[in-house]
Amino acid sequence: MSGVYRSRLGERVDKSASRFMSSIEDDERILLDDVIGTMAHDIMLHEQKIISKQDLKAILTSLEELHTLWIQDKIKLDPEFEDVHEFVEDYVIKKIGQEVGGKLHTGRSRNDQVALDLRIYVRRELNEISREILDLINILLEKASDTSDTVMVGYTHLQHGQITSFGHYLLSYTDALFRDLERIRECYTRLNSPLGACALAGSSFPLDRMKTAKLLGFNDIVENSIDAVSSRDFAIETVSCLATVMMNLSRISEDLIIWSSTEFGYVEVSDEYASTSSVMPQKKNPSTLELIRGKTGTVYGELVNLLTIFKALMTGYNLDHQETKKPLWNSIDIAENCLEILTGIIKTLKVNENRMLTVASESYAGAIDLAEELVRKGLSFRESHKLVGFIVKKYVESGKSLNNLSSEDIATYSQDTLGKNITITEKELKRTLDPTESLKSRQTTGSPNPEEIKRMIKDRKKKSENQMKHLTGEVQRIEKVYDKLLRLVSSYIK
Amino acid sequence: MSGVYRSRLGERVDKSASRFMSSIEDDERILLDDVIGTMAHDIMLHEQKIISKQDLKAILTSLEELHTLWIQDKIKLDPEFEDVHEFVEDYVIKKIGQEVGGKLHTGRSRNDQVALDLRIYVRRELNEISREILDLINILLEKASDTSDTVMVGYTHLQHGQITSFGHYLLSYTDALFRDLERIRECYTRLNSPLGACALAGSSFPLDRMKTAKLLGFNDIVENSIDAVSSRDFAIETVSCLATVMMNLSRISEDLIIWSSTEFGYVEVSDEYASTSSVMPQKKNPSTLELIRGKTGTVYGELVNLLTIFKALMTGYNLDHQETKKPLWNSIDIAENCLEILTGIIKTLKVNENRMLTVASESYAGAIDLAEELVRKGLSFRESHKLVGFIVKKYVESGKSLNNLSSEDIATYSQDTLGKNITITEKELKRTLDPTESLKSRQTTGSPNPEEIKRMIKDRKKKSENQMKHLTGEVQRIEKVYDKLLRLVSSYIK
Amino acid sequence: MSGVYRSRLGERVDKSASRFMSSIEDDERILLDDVIGTMAHDIMLHEQKIISKQDLKAILTSLEELHTLWIQDKIKLDPEFEDVHEFVEDYVIKKIGQEVGGKLHTGRSRNDQVALDLRIYVRRELNEISREILDLINILLEKASDTSDTVMVGYTHLQHGQITSFGHYLLSYTDALFRDLERIRECYTRLNSPLGACALAGSSFPLDRMKTAKLLGFNDIVENSIDAVSSRDFAIETVSCLATVMMNLSRISEDLIIWSSTEFGYVEVSDEYASTSSVMPQKKNPSTLELIRGKTGTVYGELVNLLTIFKALMTGYNLDHQETKKPLWNSIDIAENCLEILTGIIKTLKVNENRMLTVASESYAGAIDLAEELVRKGLSFRESHKLVGFIVKKYVESGKSLNNLSSEDIATYSQDTLGKNITITEKELKRTLDPTESLKSRQTTGSPNPEEIKRMIKDRKKKSENQMKHLTGEVQRIEKVYDKLLRLVSSYIK
Amino acid sequence: MSGVYRSRLGERVDKSASRFMSSIEDDERILLDDVIGTMAHDIMLHEQKIISKQDLKAILTSLEELHTLWIQDKIKLDPEFEDVHEFVEDYVIKKIGQEVGGKLHTGRSRNDQVALDLRIYVRRELNEISREILDLINILLEKASDTSDTVMVGYTHLQHGQITSFGHYLLSYTDALFRDLERIRECYTRLNSPLGACALAGSSFPLDRMKTAKLLGFNDIVENSIDAVSSRDFAIETVSCLATVMMNLSRISEDLIIWSSTEFGYVEVSDEYASTSSVMPQKKNPSTLELIRGKTGTVYGELVNLLTIFKALMTGYNLDHQETKKPLWNSIDIAENCLEILTGIIKTLKVNENRMLTVASESYAGAIDLAEELVRKGLSFRESHKLVGFIVKKYVESGKSLNNLSSEDIATYSQDTLGKNITITEKELKRTLDPTESLKSRQTTGSPNPEEIKRMIKDRKKKSENQMKHLTGEVQRIEKVYDKLLRLVSSYIK
Repeated sequence: MSGVYRSRLGERVDKSASRFMSSIEDDERILLDDVIGTMAHDIMLHEQKIISKQDLKAILTSLEELHTLWIQDKIKLDPEFEDVHEFVEDYVIKKIGQEVGGKLHTGRSRNDQVALDLRIYVRRELNEISREILDLINILLEKASDTSDTVMVGYTHLQHGQITSFGHYLLSYTDALFRDLERIRECYTRLNSPLGACALAGSSFPLDRMKTAKLLGFNDIVENSIDAVSSRDFAIETVSCLATVMMNLSRISEDLIIWSSTEFGYVEVSDEYASTSSVMPQKKNPSTLELIRGKTGTVYGELVNLLTIFKALMTGYNLDHQETKKPLWNSIDIAENCLEILTGIIKTLKVNENRMLTVASESYAGAIDLAEELVRKGLSFRESHKLVGFIVKKYVESGKSLNNLSSEDIATYSQDTLGKNITITEKELKRTLDPTESLKSRQTTGSPNPEEIKRMIKDRKKKSENQMKHLTGEVQRIEKVYDKLLRLVSSYIK
Repeated sequence: MSGVYRSRLGERVDKSASRFMSSIEDDERILLDDVIGTMAHDIMLHEQKIISKQDLKAILTSLEELHTLWIQDKIKLDPEFEDVHEFVEDYVIKKIGQEVGGKLHTGRSRNDQVALDLRIYVRRELNEISREILDLINILLEKASDTSDTVMVGYTHLQHGQITSFGHYLLSYTDALFRDLERIRECYTRLNSPLGACALAGSSFPLDRMKTAKLLGFNDIVENSIDAVSSRDFAIETVSCLATVMMNLSRISEDLIIWSSTEFGYVEVSDEYASTSSVMPQKKNPSTLELIRGKTGTVYGELVNLLTIFKALMTGYNLDHQETKKPLWNSIDIAENCLEILTGIIKTLKVNENRMLTVASESYAGAIDLAEELVRKGLSFRESHKLVGFIVKKYVESGKSLNNLSSEDIATYSQDTLGKNITITEKELKRTLDPTESLKSRQTTGSPNPEEIKRMIKDRKKKSENQMKHLTGEVQRIEKVYDKLLRLVSSYIK
Repeated sequence: MSGVYRSRLGERVDKSASRFMSSIEDDERILLDDVIGTMAHDIMLHEQKIISKQDLKAILTSLEELHTLWIQDKIKLDPEFEDVHEFVEDYVIKKIGQEVGGKLHTGRSRNDQVALDLRIYVRRELNEISREILDLINILLEKASDTSDTVMVGYTHLQHGQITSFGHYLLSYTDALFRDLERIRECYTRLNSPLGACALAGSSFPLDRMKTAKLLGFNDIVENSIDAVSSRDFAIETVSCLATVMMNLSRISEDLIIWSSTEFGYVEVSDEYASTSSVMPQKKNPSTLELIRGKTGTVYGELVNLLTIFKALMTGYNLDHQETKKPLWNSIDIAENCLEILTGIIKTLKVNENRMLTVASESYAGAIDLAEELVRKGLSFRESHKLVGFIVKKYVESGKSLNNLSSEDIATYSQDTLGKNITITEKELKRTLDPTESLKSRQTTGSPNPEEIKRMIKDRKKKSENQMKHLTGEVQRIEKVYDKLLRLVSSYIK
Repeated sequence: MSGVYRSRLGERVDKSASRFMSSIEDDERILLDDVIGTMAHDIMLHEQKIISKQDLKAILTSLEELHTLWIQDKIKLDPEFEDVHEFVEDYVIKKIGQEVGGKLHTGRSRNDQVALDLRIYVRRELNEISREILDLINILLEKASDTSDTVMVGYTHLQHGQITSFGHYLLSYTDALFRDLERIRECYTRLNSPLGACALAGSSFPLDRMKTAKLLGFNDIVENSIDAVSSRDFAIETVSCLATVMMNLSRISEDLIIWSSTEFGYVEVSDEYASTSSVMPQKKNPSTLELIRGKTGTVYGELVNLLTIFKALMTGYNLDHQETKKPLWNSIDIAENCLEILTGIIKTLKVNENRMLTVASESYAGAIDLAEELVRKGLSFRESHKLVGFIVKKYVESGKSLNNLSSEDIATYSQDTLGKNITITEKELKRTLDPTESLKSRQTTGSPNPEEIKRMIKDRKKKSENQMKHLTGEVQRIEKVYDKLLRLVSSYIK
């Protein structure tokens, strides 16, 4: 540790302790954010007459240089530094000397610097994740469009429940993902600028906090300065959102893994997303789906990590705060990768419609349709449920499909079990038990009736477009803010 | 298990298996919600011409009866039933027979019933928790108002950081709690009605899902029927929000516990919220604070519980879903209790202002004020930081307070360490190192400058009032909806 | 709070604060343990000449009375008390007065009392859980014995991997459960007596700590008194062990749920352990398995709960420690219930051997057998893997089973892909691809070769018997210790 | 992906999917383990007459070469490979051709290979961690030896509890760490060889599983082949053990952080392990302690990660298993770093004995000593507790120290509150309230009586030596096994 800050401490730090304390490895991702944040701060310092134009020029020149070197991959973070903030300051001081360079962080502490950098980073990545969620939603909508009338057994308890369609299944996750998106966008709105909080209690310099916030594209500041340096709820909220995203992805993965089994045979993951075995040459494993499912554990774990760190942590900045980075980086990477991969999997997924239809046709899942039909014939639902339950039991035991059921049987069984005369025509019976007809018979909003599916797809496409428009607008807004800031820097340098 | 549904299954269920599967113990809290939901559903059934007015009358009469008996504590949930839904249906059928009573759940499954009940329950409790958060915010504001100029050392790394005030500290948590409140209100908006989803794929009856939603005070429905019965992200989101609330409460608790120690002596928990020892008669333990801190673990654990349950759970309803209840009940109870208790603790907290001032006056926390002052005398911040670091080191080693520092010393040390001539008058020096003056010197938004504190208190009071108004409005809206529904029931009964 | 300890505190405690602080609801389970522990302590006090025989007699008489009333369910814990310790002391003092009754806890604090009670409780339950694990192992062994040659496809990635047997599958979990048992027995050995640690730093009375330990059946004491009252690693270890047990049970549950699907059709959960649907009369849901899977979340959550509580908790006793009880109670209850239920499920599970054989016969899972056979014909394993991979791909694409493969085909394909002449006779080919023969061909220890399965079953039965003998011995030892202690109490009373 | 295994799959894998599926980044740590395991397997293949001596020679020659290149850092893992197993096989095949090199993994799958590699890795690291725990224990013992009579207030609820010594405090953690060590050593004994399990159901080659186990220094095999490839409880157990270690380290850290505060002033972390502030020049932050506390969250999180991955994961190998690596690597690294750093911190910790004594002398912590003394004067403990409670309350309110208490006062107060005459001489009273005398008066095993402390230190030193001897023996045993194996390899090559 070269130690620009260690004037107060005598002995040099122990080498392994130094490595242990350094966050430099985790800091690569935020170097540019740190430089940009510093530029904004120093411009404000000048505008508030805290530093001279000349000093500002020198500072910005060296920062701009570092910015360029970094983008061109011509400079690396030196592991001898405690963190990125020390590295940047050291760079500037080496370039322009302590007398001027030492003004870089006037009215500013690493505590508010890192709190800023993390938020800038999260802001950028939440936009990226939002885009990826919309991409996945779009692919689900496309696939649902192709399978809007693909008859399929709907499962509850992994048993045949009710006839539905594959499109209906896919659409259920567009809606879950829209909620994920909503949560992420709301989390996003709470990302404000902590800059100007200084160590924890503000500064005697007349820093204009809203000014730096605006220069960096934030709508507001984290006002209370203790709150600004001490709180990391935005990080916990971010990872909470991602944990729920992963929960949803893990469920889709589980479904598709089960449906990829030979026994189900409903879907096949494209070779691009599969792997085989080193010893069993026949294997085609839906490995990417398994990994998505497995990586859910990591994001859950990182949420616990963050919650644990901040459980009963004394207010103020503590070095425990430094441990916020890894769980953020890790969760964001995993969510981004998994969203991208799942989008590819769904896009290229082979859906075996025939197999789905065959299973549906031989299934007892039509029992509920029959029960509802018999209600229309005059039974109360519970009576009908009992009667159909009785029939199904009989048929299951003798291994017969409900397709063998005749109107006569129903009349007989109805008399036997309920003492009631129920008449249903053969035609009605056939229609009721035909899975394709079953879908068409659904009358409720949100059901797998193919017309309803089409309506929902259209509606969600519209929604997705609106969200994408909104998102793109926000991303462009930030890009413009950055362009403007860098132009301002250039103008000061010249 | 009396088994109104078990027509399909032969052998009676094993006794311990029956107890194992039953959720009846957890269902007490949602019985009324279930009854109300059923009333709404059956009124809709009639309005959609699915059941007759006469049948509706009979059904509502028995439901109304059950509702009344329950409120009067004259009926209990029978542990022989699988769940509350079976219990209610059984009650109705026993009262009015299967022929009519059996129509109770036409076009409806336990899957959408429980999904509804949980949301009604969470909706009610989120309002309660919101109110409690506002209560705590208000008390923090009051206490901050009393201590807006109570000088105190601000800690980072539990070391003396920068001079601040107790009011400033308290305010930092009003802001964190406002964010908690925001998250809860947003979570609240996602609570829509799943009713009409039936088992998982809708119904062939023309159920009007928006109708029941409106009757129950929901603004919208969870449209896709698979999503409606299969998703529990609202529960995970609820507990995530509460985990963050508890994280904040645990940090306040930790601060106050440390500050209650003899060594700090900053605050004293009122006897009402303290306990003593069975063996050490001198003890006065801040036990309620410790419990709040400890109970944080439970809410974290319940979040992990829920996330684990839904990790890779196949889509559809599975009995795993039943395990959603306990973590919700438990987290909500804990959050409500802890918020209430902490509000009481803060309200009655004794603040030892003298002790805080003494520590601040003897502290080196003024070093940053001095460093900033010396910047105004011409040093760059890093130079100033080095100079003051050098001085502090000297003083710490010789055990002297900074109050002994003279302008002469500064001139000498400045020359020695920086080779620079720095002049600061004795008066300036005294003012700079006086903690009360230090507070007044802060110029940044969100700082502990007493004027700024007052401004923030005023602003947060306004915000709190607005939030409370909004919340009260929402609670009243729901009450009106319920009144209307019960009046509608009465009109059908008569 | 009646407050036998509150002499130091002035104001009476706030009512809701009192309820909040009280652990009395959780204390029911340890009342007897607390009474027994107190008896042992007071006998020791007398033997060490700290209290007189007469005082001891009075104390033991009242404790014995309370013990009897409790067992006969004639007395209840009063929620007005802070905890069980206060309740017991209050009972004694009310009976025999403060002058003598006040000696009850000489040299003893609630801190070491509760640390003792928890360990006695955990000791008892770990024995119970150990017995249940052995019961489940025994049922698995029985079922494995019935299915030692039941051919079945073994899955990896839920794809057909390698031919195995259902017995082999079941045995894999006996071994996992034996490891669970080992961990629990080791955890058990670390349960020593903390009694005599007093508040945290021992006592000036000559308490004989080994004496009370022996009276209560402990082999040793938790020696360092701070460690004795401050540590709860035994609780974390207990719940860690149970979390791993649940992890194993959840995996068995998942397998059986998937295998219960119509599509797999391998097993059927007996009606006793199944439930049906309120709306879909055809359903037979493996609900108990789903609940076991779901309840895994709770135990995981409780582990996180405990870990969170003790994360960075200051050494010594804090009221956070009180929160140790619920996660222990909860995890232990769940593990016990789930073990019992799963044992019943396995015992009554219907195994559809024909279906398993059919799937195996039509599967490509024999590919690895073929690959190994071709190695014996002169190919290197990787060559053979490539050749068989090539063949399988061809067959999968044309939808043909490997049963159609001829020796001629192999010769041709081998030439085509490897440029090698490979001869395998039709007979060898048939034998290689016959799943029953495949099992018999396995030569490795731990494989599903039916002979190997039988050997393993025999071996595990022996192991299980030994473990049960050891466990029974330990349980009886403790029973004897208790008998002896109660006889000692009786002898003092008379 | 170069794809030595992908003969079955048609399309090349998607590039990002390939990166997603690859574990190569995590595999660096186990390359040597994989090579060594492969050597052992292939020697066994030859000894079982499955491959020829000549083939073995060729294979071992190339493996030995790879081994050497790796150690000399002359070869790197190529990210184009799926994993280390494919990389190694590819290396060998490139060197000696498919005809011979393709025999490398005869009767072996990646499933049992990785299960082996992980166990070899964990085995090595558990030994390393055990050594580090013993190092920390030894330093604690040394420091305890220096402070065996350093009077200090013992805290419960962070309030003054009972007089103890700093040595007593330190010793409490040696005992907790010995339990951690025990758990790790027990976990260690369950690390057996899975090799020979093949994909999941063994092999038709006559593999001698015990042979490879012995060659690699394992005492036993994971017998059931499904269990061998499917189970990862050893990983969960490992991380559970480390989570408890971290829990203990986090508590020590918290104590020392609080005691490093200016207000406590008990200890000072050496400059080597401290950091300072970028803006507050007076700061000396116990940063390493804070990081240890913070990193606890990561290990907790990794435990949740692993538990989540294996929750309800279908039996067999799934790609989810691949995600076992990161949490293991991560937890092990953190535990090792934190143990090493804490050892250094304790070693160089400055203990401010005077400050501790001053606080103890002015504290009410002697109240329990007084209460016990008054019991010896004839009061029951509860009476004495009440009397002393009354006195303390009076003194606290008037801000007086107990040192002002006279025998006369006691006589008066005793009469007032209990109506009893209690006589204690001034000399007795002084002795009782003198903290140094208080320590000496403790008569219980495990108490801070300096004599008892010395006895315990001696005992723990002995224990630590024995453990270190045992550990060193085990490490040397494995080294010898490896030497022997490599010599065997050499003999085959020559």
